[in-house]
Amino acid sequence: MSSLRIALAQLNVTVGDLDRNRLLLEEAIRRAAAWRADLVITPELAVCGYPPEDLLLKPQFVEANLRVVERLRSATRGGLTALVGFVDRDRRGRLFNAAAVLSNGRHAATYRKQCLPNYGVFDEQRYFTAGTQSMMMELGGWRVGVTICEDLWDGAPCRRLAAAGAQVLANLSASPYHVGKLIERERVFARRAREHRMAIAYCNLVGGQDELIFDGASLMLDLRGRRLAQGAQFQEDLVVVDLLPEQAGRGRSRRGRAVPVRLPSPPANRPALRQQPAVQLEPLEEIYEALTLGVRDYVRKNGFSSVVLGLSGGIDSALTACIAADALGPTQVIGVVMPSRFSSADTQEDARRVGRALGIEAQEVSIEPIFAACLQTLKPLFGDRPEDLTEQNLQARIRGLLLMALSNKFGWLVLTTGNKSEMATGYTTLYGDMAGGFAAIKDVPKTLVYELARFRNRRGPNRPIPESVLKRDPTAELAHRQRDQDTLPPYSVLDRILKAYVEEDRSLQEILAGNRMEPAMVHRVLQMVDRSEYKRRQGPPGIKITPKAFGKDRRMPITNRYREGLHV
Amino acid sequence: MSSLRIALAQLNVTVGDLDRNRLLLEEAIRRAAAWRADLVITPELAVCGYPPEDLLLKPQFVEANLRVVERLRSATRGGLTALVGFVDRDRRGRLFNAAAVLSNGRHAATYRKQCLPNYGVFDEQRYFTAGTQSMMMELGGWRVGVTICEDLWDGAPCRRLAAAGAQVLANLSASPYHVGKLIERERVFARRAREHRMAIAYCNLVGGQDELIFDGASLMLDLRGRRLAQGAQFQEDLVVVDLLPEQAGRGRSRRGRAVPVRLPSPPANRPALRQQPAVQLEPLEEIYEALTLGVRDYVRKNGFSSVVLGLSGGIDSALTACIAADALGPTQVIGVVMPSRFSSADTQEDARRVGRALGIEAQEVSIEPIFAACLQTLKPLFGDRPEDLTEQNLQARIRGLLLMALSNKFGWLVLTTGNKSEMATGYTTLYGDMAGGFAAIKDVPKTLVYELARFRNRRGPNRPIPESVLKRDPTAELAHRQRDQDTLPPYSVLDRILKAYVEEDRSLQEILAGNRMEPAMVHRVLQMVDRSEYKRRQGPPGIKITPKAFGKDRRMPITNRYREGLHV
Repeated sequence: MSSLRIALAQLNVTVGDLDRNRLLLEEAIRRAAAWRADLVITPELAVCGYPPEDLLLKPQFVEANLRVVERLRSATRGGLTALVGFVDRDRRGRLFNAAAVLSNGRHAATYRKQCLPNYGVFDEQRYFTAGTQSMMMELGGWRVGVTICEDLWDGAPCRRLAAAGAQVLANLSASPYHVGKLIERERVFARRAREHRMAIAYCNLVGGQDELIFDGASLMLDLRGRRLAQGAQFQEDLVVVDLLPEQAGRGRSRRGRAVPVRLPSPPANRPALRQQPAVQLEPLEEIYEALTLGVRDYVRKNGFSSVVLGLSGGIDSALTACIAADALGPTQVIGVVMPSRFSSADTQEDARRVGRALGIEAQEVSIEPIFAACLQTLKPLFGDRPEDLTEQNLQARIRGLLLMALSNKFGWLVLTTGNKSEMATGYTTLYGDMAGGFAAIKDVPKTLVYELARFRNRRGPNRPIPESVLKRDPTAELAHRQRDQDTLPPYSVLDRILKAYVEEDRSLQEILAGNRMEPAMVHRVLQMVDRSEYKRRQGPPGIKITPKAFGKDRRMPITNRYREGLHV
Repeated sequence: MSSLRIALAQLNVTVGDLDRNRLLLEEAIRRAAAWRADLVITPELAVCGYPPEDLLLKPQFVEANLRVVERLRSATRGGLTALVGFVDRDRRGRLFNAAAVLSNGRHAATYRKQCLPNYGVFDEQRYFTAGTQSMMMELGGWRVGVTICEDLWDGAPCRRLAAAGAQVLANLSASPYHVGKLIERERVFARRAREHRMAIAYCNLVGGQDELIFDGASLMLDLRGRRLAQGAQFQEDLVVVDLLPEQAGRGRSRRGRAVPVRLPSPPANRPALRQQPAVQLEPLEEIYEALTLGVRDYVRKNGFSSVVLGLSGGIDSALTACIAADALGPTQVIGVVMPSRFSSADTQEDARRVGRALGIEAQEVSIEPIFAACLQTLKPLFGDRPEDLTEQNLQARIRGLLLMALSNKFGWLVLTTGNKSEMATGYTTLYGDMAGGFAAIKDVPKTLVYELARFRNRRGPNRPIPESVLKRDPTAELAHRQRDQDTLPPYSVLDRILKAYVEEDRSLQEILAGNRMEPAMVHRVLQMVDRSEYKRRQGPPGIKITPKAFGKDRRMPITNRYREGLHV
């Protein structure tokens, strides 16, 4: 038996952009054909993009997606087989997350995903009916089982395919990124390979879609779970691998049931492959690249070219500016310095230095005249009430209003600069610093913001973030001598509490048991998180990088009288 | 066989408020016992509130809910049986949407919901595992089958219970309101009753929870589907009915399988029942009451007592003020008139008249000084760019900023006043008129806003909305001689398009086929809807009254390149 040449086409498709997605798929199939691949695997739902959400409830959308599949057939003429992710529909109108087997110009068969995730960010049971049949392709003497994303994680479909004699498991995926996901995936997939003695060919989507980043990093594993090849992280790639018979299993058992699909192999005379070693990004670089891709894709896929953001001289806006400049190029980023009576000369100068080091356009405008007009206007309404948070929120809202005015006038997208620690505790102003279209570092805890800032300085180009920004005590500068830690515990403590509460759903008791912390302080932090749900609900979307982000990942009621610690 | 006395306890519980929910349940059980009821039925998940969303992922929340069930047992001493909705958990940690059968002080059995809705506003498959067994209670010679909400809509569990000889079907529900739902429910339930020749005792939740209104209106139907009793709409109620043997089926077949639970009946000597005829609200009154309940519950359950809103002199803010005043009492509502250079004397006077007629506190503050300061500040940044929508949005944002300042200073919740037609087309300013905590009429199309305003004038007290407000051409008054219809088609046309596109997922072709409309105009409206998703995502929650509201009901991606009509 000769080797099987498999191409993994990790593409950056766009939700709903059926025409462009078709062109991307055609091009990938053509390139795989030029390498004389036997089989090209594309990402899950590549025809329509992932996740299409309620677009799936529009019958005309599903029909348009079916037409794309029919048009893609012809690209496989000449002996190639392509697995293309699309939305299938049966006569009763039920929808399936499916893979079309396009082979030699024919739509030879369709596989329907059996395991539909409906947790975390996933809602597949809202739309799809689960398939009930496994499918085995017979391809030039090779037996290749077909799976889609969760099928491989769940395990049951793999067992069935192994029992039916699969030597290779093809997997079409749209697997979202978070820190540690790459290792988790390889661990799970390698276990499946070893369990069933079969090779695994996994093709992942790449690109940003609202909150989600798909990180590519497609994988080819042999029957011992060893990595044969890996696709690039955070960019498109076509990985072509010659799988040798000894790298795949023999698939001896034939007792299991799977629908067989017999397919031709392409002629021989293949161009030789150069093996490219996979470059795995360092942990901080990986996160930084995820954020960069997220900003670039949100901006471009939504039809913007430039972004504007407020530069406060603090670390959050400095890091956000770096990400934006690296994502879009410095000429597409506008920074606005908006000082008030509470802004120190140092922070203003730091803001300017960040702008200069990145080479972005920086504008400057004082909020004082508008702030004064607001205080004057509100005086008769406020009477003799003392100053409080109201006046602080006012300043943040004036800044938001100015950025939105620039956005409206020039067509720039506003990037907000809030981090996860702020979003969690509500240490942020609704319609103020939360005003904007996209929140680049919304899922980045403050302690990680520092690490990423230092990483960006180390990596270059330049060292855009001044040491003074890295060293200054965090402050919102909305009142005299204000520091974040007047209101919040130190971020090193806060971020540990937030990880346990928000990402791991730990109880007050569990958090206290694992840490030496003041119970009243921890209780107060949990209350801040619970009471800020209404703010988060009105914030812009941002990039998920942790196992549980605010947004689709954590769906808390706003009206919610449950309080930790009061129901012991 | 003597009659079966059934009490339907439609309660207004609060999500997460386990202590208070327990008190409400105990009180309801006690009242049912005082009537010497055989059986009291409570709403679905009454212990924790519905929907608890991701609170269910906290193990300590589920445990606390289980402790409440155990504490409720003792309330059933003396022969009564209660069906109480709660979250059950098995040894593997799987969760079930369940009904506890509490009888004579014991937790006699647990039924687990078999049909888990995962469409529209429902996400039950995100949390729950489906039960697999039907349950039949044997209660003083009566056979009562137990179901939870969707079980009754789906039909399969009813068939199984009928086959097992059920005479009565008990149903615990949390069924959200929309226009026409009441009729739909009675039609479906009556069909089930006639199909299987059994009586139906359906108890619905009542109250507002974020976007959802549960409307009560619990139902008791005989085996011919005829209404024996109905609970009040939009308020708590305890409906007690004596079901006669001839009103329920005989339950002859015994071939189906259901877990039997034998329960004692309470002693005789029952107080006689007075039959209260059900009062069914007129269509407009029904919607108005839904909106009133929604505002009241959102405000109170979130710990507010007063609300503030902008009074523009237009119909949307006038109607919102009426709803708020009726929901909370006029002393808890503050209206703010915020004129600019574009506000006519007529509209300002209309705004004041609405405030006076409702007896609410009205404040007045010009936005001109702040507007002037903003224009001055932005001048160097805008250069010689001409005026455009930016300056209009600025005015709306200044108003939002002033309302939020009042909210911060006095602890008032801001009500926004936008209607569904505006939210759909994006004819609204993010962080401007969209700034606020709750959007009372967000799901009310503009044409229905007029009908509700006229209804409120007819019903009284007073006629708070001046004729001039009802007759004036709608205008945002953000520019000279501006009218909504310079930008939008007439609302009578627009609302028909929006209903077809947003609520019914019709394609451009289908909308054009059913109406004589200008294709380019319809196409433009659909584009406005698609392109405004980012705005809606940052808007406050509001009350669902139509079959498909924006929010949890319609989950569109923001990044979405699909456009109607371009993929024919």
